[in-house]
Amino acid sequence: MKHHQYAITPPMGWNSWDCYGATVTEEEVKGNAEYMATHLKQFGWEYIVVDIQWSEAGAVSSAYRPFIPLEMDEFSRLIPASNRFPLSKDNQGFKPLANDIHQKGLKFGIHIMRGIPRQAVHQNTAISGTNKRARDIAKPNSICPWNTDMYGIDSNKDGAQAYYDSLFQLYAEWGVDFVKVDDIADSKLYGIHAEEIKMIRKAIDRCGRPMVLSLSPGPTSLHSVSLLEENANMWRMTDDFWDIWDLLYDMFEKCYRWSKNIGPGYWPDADMLPLGHIGIRSVDGGASDRFTRFTKDEQLTMMTLWSIFRSPLMFGGEMRDNDEWTLSLLTNKEVLEVHRNGFGARQVYRDEDKVVWSSCGDEATLYVAMFNLADDEEQVAVTLESLGLTDTQVKVRDLWKQKDLEPQFEEITYKLKPHQSKLLKLSNVQTQYCNKGTNLNL
Amino acid sequence: MKHHQYAITPPMGWNSWDCYGATVTEEEVKGNAEYMATHLKQFGWEYIVVDIQWSEAGAVSSAYRPFIPLEMDEFSRLIPASNRFPLSKDNQGFKPLANDIHQKGLKFGIHIMRGIPRQAVHQNTAISGTNKRARDIAKPNSICPWNTDMYGIDSNKDGAQAYYDSLFQLYAEWGVDFVKVDDIADSKLYGIHAEEIKMIRKAIDRCGRPMVLSLSPGPTSLHSVSLLEENANMWRMTDDFWDIWDLLYDMFEKCYRWSKNIGPGYWPDADMLPLGHIGIRSVDGGASDRFTRFTKDEQLTMMTLWSIFRSPLMFGGEMRDNDEWTLSLLTNKEVLEVHRNGFGARQVYRDEDKVVWSSCGDEATLYVAMFNLADDEEQVAVTLESLGLTDTQVKVRDLWKQKDLEPQFEEITYKLKPHQSKLLKLSNVQTQYCNKGTNLNL
Amino acid sequence: MKHHQYAITPPMGWNSWDCYGATVTEEEVKGNAEYMATHLKQFGWEYIVVDIQWSEAGAVSSAYRPFIPLEMDEFSRLIPASNRFPLSKDNQGFKPLANDIHQKGLKFGIHIMRGIPRQAVHQNTAISGTNKRARDIAKPNSICPWNTDMYGIDSNKDGAQAYYDSLFQLYAEWGVDFVKVDDIADSKLYGIHAEEIKMIRKAIDRCGRPMVLSLSPGPTSLHSVSLLEENANMWRMTDDFWDIWDLLYDMFEKCYRWSKNIGPGYWPDADMLPLGHIGIRSVDGGASDRFTRFTKDEQLTMMTLWSIFRSPLMFGGEMRDNDEWTLSLLTNKEVLEVHRNGFGARQVYRDEDKVVWSSCGDEATLYVAMFNLADDEEQVAVTLESLGLTDTQVKVRDLWKQKDLEPQFEEITYKLKPHQSKLLKLSNVQTQYCNKGTNLNL
Amino acid sequence: MKHHQYAITPPMGWNSWDCYGATVTEEEVKGNAEYMATHLKQFGWEYIVVDIQWSEAGAVSSAYRPFIPLEMDEFSRLIPASNRFPLSKDNQGFKPLANDIHQKGLKFGIHIMRGIPRQAVHQNTAISGTNKRARDIAKPNSICPWNTDMYGIDSNKDGAQAYYDSLFQLYAEWGVDFVKVDDIADSKLYGIHAEEIKMIRKAIDRCGRPMVLSLSPGPTSLHSVSLLEENANMWRMTDDFWDIWDLLYDMFEKCYRWSKNIGPGYWPDADMLPLGHIGIRSVDGGASDRFTRFTKDEQLTMMTLWSIFRSPLMFGGEMRDNDEWTLSLLTNKEVLEVHRNGFGARQVYRDEDKVVWSSCGDEATLYVAMFNLADDEEQVAVTLESLGLTDTQVKVRDLWKQKDLEPQFEEITYKLKPHQSKLLKLSNVQTQYCNKGTNLNL
Repeated sequence: MKHHQYAITPPMGWNSWDCYGATVTEEEVKGNAEYMATHLKQFGWEYIVVDIQWSEAGAVSSAYRPFIPLEMDEFSRLIPASNRFPLSKDNQGFKPLANDIHQKGLKFGIHIMRGIPRQAVHQNTAISGTNKRARDIAKPNSICPWNTDMYGIDSNKDGAQAYYDSLFQLYAEWGVDFVKVDDIADSKLYGIHAEEIKMIRKAIDRCGRPMVLSLSPGPTSLHSVSLLEENANMWRMTDDFWDIWDLLYDMFEKCYRWSKNIGPGYWPDADMLPLGHIGIRSVDGGASDRFTRFTKDEQLTMMTLWSIFRSPLMFGGEMRDNDEWTLSLLTNKEVLEVHRNGFGARQVYRDEDKVVWSSCGDEATLYVAMFNLADDEEQVAVTLESLGLTDTQVKVRDLWKQKDLEPQFEEITYKLKPHQSKLLKLSNVQTQYCNKGTNLNL
Repeated sequence: MKHHQYAITPPMGWNSWDCYGATVTEEEVKGNAEYMATHLKQFGWEYIVVDIQWSEAGAVSSAYRPFIPLEMDEFSRLIPASNRFPLSKDNQGFKPLANDIHQKGLKFGIHIMRGIPRQAVHQNTAISGTNKRARDIAKPNSICPWNTDMYGIDSNKDGAQAYYDSLFQLYAEWGVDFVKVDDIADSKLYGIHAEEIKMIRKAIDRCGRPMVLSLSPGPTSLHSVSLLEENANMWRMTDDFWDIWDLLYDMFEKCYRWSKNIGPGYWPDADMLPLGHIGIRSVDGGASDRFTRFTKDEQLTMMTLWSIFRSPLMFGGEMRDNDEWTLSLLTNKEVLEVHRNGFGARQVYRDEDKVVWSSCGDEATLYVAMFNLADDEEQVAVTLESLGLTDTQVKVRDLWKQKDLEPQFEEITYKLKPHQSKLLKLSNVQTQYCNKGTNLNL
Repeated sequence: MKHHQYAITPPMGWNSWDCYGATVTEEEVKGNAEYMATHLKQFGWEYIVVDIQWSEAGAVSSAYRPFIPLEMDEFSRLIPASNRFPLSKDNQGFKPLANDIHQKGLKFGIHIMRGIPRQAVHQNTAISGTNKRARDIAKPNSICPWNTDMYGIDSNKDGAQAYYDSLFQLYAEWGVDFVKVDDIADSKLYGIHAEEIKMIRKAIDRCGRPMVLSLSPGPTSLHSVSLLEENANMWRMTDDFWDIWDLLYDMFEKCYRWSKNIGPGYWPDADMLPLGHIGIRSVDGGASDRFTRFTKDEQLTMMTLWSIFRSPLMFGGEMRDNDEWTLSLLTNKEVLEVHRNGFGARQVYRDEDKVVWSSCGDEATLYVAMFNLADDEEQVAVTLESLGLTDTQVKVRDLWKQKDLEPQFEEITYKLKPHQSKLLKLSNVQTQYCNKGTNLNL
Repeated sequence: MKHHQYAITPPMGWNSWDCYGATVTEEEVKGNAEYMATHLKQFGWEYIVVDIQWSEAGAVSSAYRPFIPLEMDEFSRLIPASNRFPLSKDNQGFKPLANDIHQKGLKFGIHIMRGIPRQAVHQNTAISGTNKRARDIAKPNSICPWNTDMYGIDSNKDGAQAYYDSLFQLYAEWGVDFVKVDDIADSKLYGIHAEEIKMIRKAIDRCGRPMVLSLSPGPTSLHSVSLLEENANMWRMTDDFWDIWDLLYDMFEKCYRWSKNIGPGYWPDADMLPLGHIGIRSVDGGASDRFTRFTKDEQLTMMTLWSIFRSPLMFGGEMRDNDEWTLSLLTNKEVLEVHRNGFGARQVYRDEDKVVWSSCGDEATLYVAMFNLADDEEQVAVTLESLGLTDTQVKVRDLWKQKDLEPQFEEITYKLKPHQSKLLKLSNVQTQYCNKGTNLNL
């Protein structure tokens, strides 16, 4: 489908949530954009995304202030809080900031909540392009359970599509390239909001500007898989992910379940990478200002899973505080190649806490990721046969170390420490699993 | 995966359940095989499947007789009831019948229930290839809620895999080509039996004979999609399907949900076709001896959906009683081409009870199926744009009538009677939806 | 408990919902009060209850107008819409109307929704007796799924109890005798709101005026039984009840389940009696302006069940339009005696759609209700033994007809038409079931 | 109801499960009976109950041996394993053992599983008093999920009631006084088995001997409350209870929920008392041979809750190994008086982990139990007002210590250590909560 073209490889970028909660400022956004342009752009990183509540002038944390008035234009549309985003003065919205980011060769994204502001509904304000007003289109009792900003919109009402159209028309004028819509994929109270997803799809298609559509929060139900692919580019497989081992452990099962439902333009999303300096103005995830609580092995394990599975990669930390180690996680070309161009990822096997995945590269290449999720050291092995190889010996390259290893016979086997993993490349191999005639819907 | 090769296109065949319940006899099987060889083989139909309880000497209907002893060999394996299957005498099992069917150029399939006979467990009989006995491997309280024949098998027990190995070794000796395993994909009491599915996969791989693996009953959960693809060839999307409009109506939603999870060798299954003369010795589905209760329009609608979605096609009626109309549903080469070689099927849109699907054919061909599921006549239309076409005019061929229709401009539109459908072929068209680079996981 | 004294027998009265939805006017309330004083008071009927949205000036039906402003005082408390209730002018609230009703020798009740008006929260208005404001006590995402008037109140917040206290202080000033609190016993979205129930109990206890507390809607979970008894006088066993046989049929099961949890002051509630002229300005229950759709037999069956079970009796029709038949249902002294003074009600047996209940009267009296819930005529019988009687013969009186019937031997048996029932009184009998030493918690 | 007379106060006795699992022997039963007759009978203890699988000759633990043949008579009824119960030789069943226990002035109880032995069904053995056989009455797919002995019985089948009648006729001949029926009140797979409960009620009523009917396991649903009272004497509020604080902690909530549904003859059951020497041949509850893991304070807390709530008291330890402390828990007359004759128990309040209950004694007596369930020391207080007292001062007696304490003014307050409690008696007090006119269903 046409919108799949907007994200033909899994999006890579930065998002303000993990470090700044609901409070990020223009200066911080620009600073991170500058960092990305300098250090990361050349590796494929491109999106700079301002997360939730950029209309809240007094936001102080990841904890929202209930019922607080938000900045809004005359047509019931939220606009940036000008104290936090000075460039938005004179009713310019995010246009100047987007320009700035575009000039750095990057792309600009925003977060929105589905629906229309509650304050608009109680004031019964106007909607652009229709004589209907806010009260006419709000779904009376459709709320978000964790934030008081919005009412949902009733797709059966005249003016409903007009409102979403007016939103995306504004975002197109601003120059938005990526929209993360929240409280929509798993609304906790009501399940998935299918009708609002369809209205948003239509509004983007009509707005004249390509925008990647990302749906939150998760876990999104697999039962909605067709709806998701037909309307969005990425959707969360999980509730908010943080630097907690149990959450990373659980992601393996989620990736396994979704692994048949990935392709160019539609990307099940394992959520942001809580790496580097996070929690600066956020208490979500059970902690505050810190460097990631993941060990180095866990960080590699996370990056390896996200890469071979091809989850979107959205870095969550304050990038300007990256140390060398953290930067190295984002700039390994051989690893990023797996993420960008691998295909046909599958879990080869799981035996309790030993897990092996593979995916296909170009020209007789097979990637193999081996994980030890146990709390003890384990010997993790995979037979060449189970990888679909008829060879009895293969050459193996360690992609994180960018170093060739000893050839392996009959099976590939390594001793892995707790939570440790290996990401390998096998060259000059033939496997049925990368034979398009057999494992694709042709 | 290797076992996907066993069913590279969706299986087509005949199954005894809809007409004979648990009671089919050798004569009836052979008679239907003869019919298939004569009238259907040339169109791709090939499997002859003996459904449930072929070990029950006194089966009288689709209603099972609880706790009735079944015919069993010394190794706790059920064998054909020799009064119903005289060729199985002298401990030959299904080998002679399979031979007969193979000689007709067809393939032979059987139904089994997961597990080991309860009678074996209570008698504590032997298991081939191990010194463990029936009582050692039975999962004490794993039963089927609708049939008393078996206990489940506990994969953690020594001898468990040996028993499944011994079963499939026997079936390989008989010459079985297709196994429908029941009470396993949605066991009603316990969900899916993942461990038994894996044991069966392993047993087939070890037995040395390719066998298509079909899992029942449904609805199988989409959450098991990876497990299913890695172990089976087909699995039921639905509970038992019968000639009842509501069941057919619901199948559209099920197909929509599963449509991203189909490919060469793994086929979500819409269940058997209750066409022609059915219910001869069955009271399942709320009726007995009859010609199908579906109207002709409904029959065409069912065949159209099964074909474009690429469900396995297993005919359920007594084929020797087919009238010309029924036979015509099974022998339309242009329709069967959609089933056999179409790919990339998707629901283009659904607007209440108007539904349009498309799939891709070779060389610039697009198939379009249009359905009116309403109880009133409706104008059903699909724009060329939504099919991904940039043309403003297309030539259209009606595949059921094998007749070219008037060209259509901008949109394809037909007035359809209640429950009626159209299956069309568009030639010389280009659409992004059949562009492998955009809609496949590459 | 003290509040049990406020409703030592099950409340009897009139409620405006079934006839006037959200729209009843002062004139209609007074007219019905006049009718009750004249025709019903002498039989024990006493409450006149104004149901939902008496603050909504423009209410037109049982369908609410979303987000419409309501009349409210400076302390965030809803007050009567003065166009509908002219006596409330000059900030007098319901005091004059309550006076009028008290002068007729009756009692006055109102309906409220749990929580604080959403309009108060978005305007952040004051609360009497505290410096906290509306926004400080609202539970941010606690709403009613079927009405947009209120947010729930967070009992953990300072000022929360103060708000409820201020509400009931106002109601005490008005002279309110009965409060029906809605969206609290089964909130559909969130289950029971236990903390708000406790705050309301405390507020009533503090307000200095006895008020019966009635909780809606149902079905309330039996698991909350202790909470309910400790805080309320009545609570709904069922979602809204209407003149539909299936709803009446289901009530038998609900009464059975709750029958051990009734006593002086705590009354599981089978909901209002949709009798006489109802639906005048209401479309709830699937119909509009009509006389009840229940047949006469069904009306008697309903009254019999409500009476022997001792549900509160709240008449739902426009009483001034009562015909003689309808009035006769409300004024049968022998039947009302069962309701007022029966005790120890129990379902003696249920055999498919034949149901028999009994309860105890004073001085060797046993009441027996026999029901035929089937759609065909049935012989319904109950043995004297199963009633706990050792006699072989009993005298029987038909309470609806106030007429002695033939004595019955060994068992009581009647042929009953579909949906018909009999309510009988047996005199001079001894039964263990009315022996306080054996069936009460002593 | 008549059967309520069989347990007009909550049963007190001993059960073999906590110490001997499925393996108790005649010698052990007799030894414990001897102990009870000597040390406990005078305090009201009377039942000696042989728990599960007395038909299993080779039982070794609380872990069952799947599918093992059981000893059975010609009429499909299980009989005692004669190696474990030598007195049962010559087809005498439990009659001689029951005699022995009766001669000691005690009563005899047995455990059974609902249903008919699976071995009987597969052998299709006879049933006494009918020409139907085992296979005719078994419910084909009704099993227990944790034990392989039985199939459920289908109440719709001829011969079903006859089988249960034949069972209880046999038990009456043996002299059984108490039957604990298992896998019936919360069957895990299927919920409550209402029809089998009714058949058992009928069978007991017909057998001519009073027997207390106890239903297991729990948690039984409160929604079945009427069914339970009408058919049984006690039923489990909880799954198996063991000497684990969390389980005891949770019991407070369960007691609260059930506290309105207790009375002479029907006793919600908090399960056996895991005190003294337990786990001798049992690994259930996560431990083996031990003295109870409860601290002394926890033991007193448990006994206090069971007593004021009036749960049945079934001691679970090997009584002959009781130390003085353990014996003292069972022989405190003042505490046992609360259990035997208290009434109207209610939770006065719960504030996080501070809990207060009260119940009524004869002649102006109020019992008060105060609990600190927290893991820290807490001041626990209860106002006289909330106990319904108008006095400003009360005399207080500590029942466990049998000692008068300081009088208390306005409120009763004690500092309690973690998990500690106090059981108090207040004399010469008047409270509405013990006024039968207000808190009973009269």
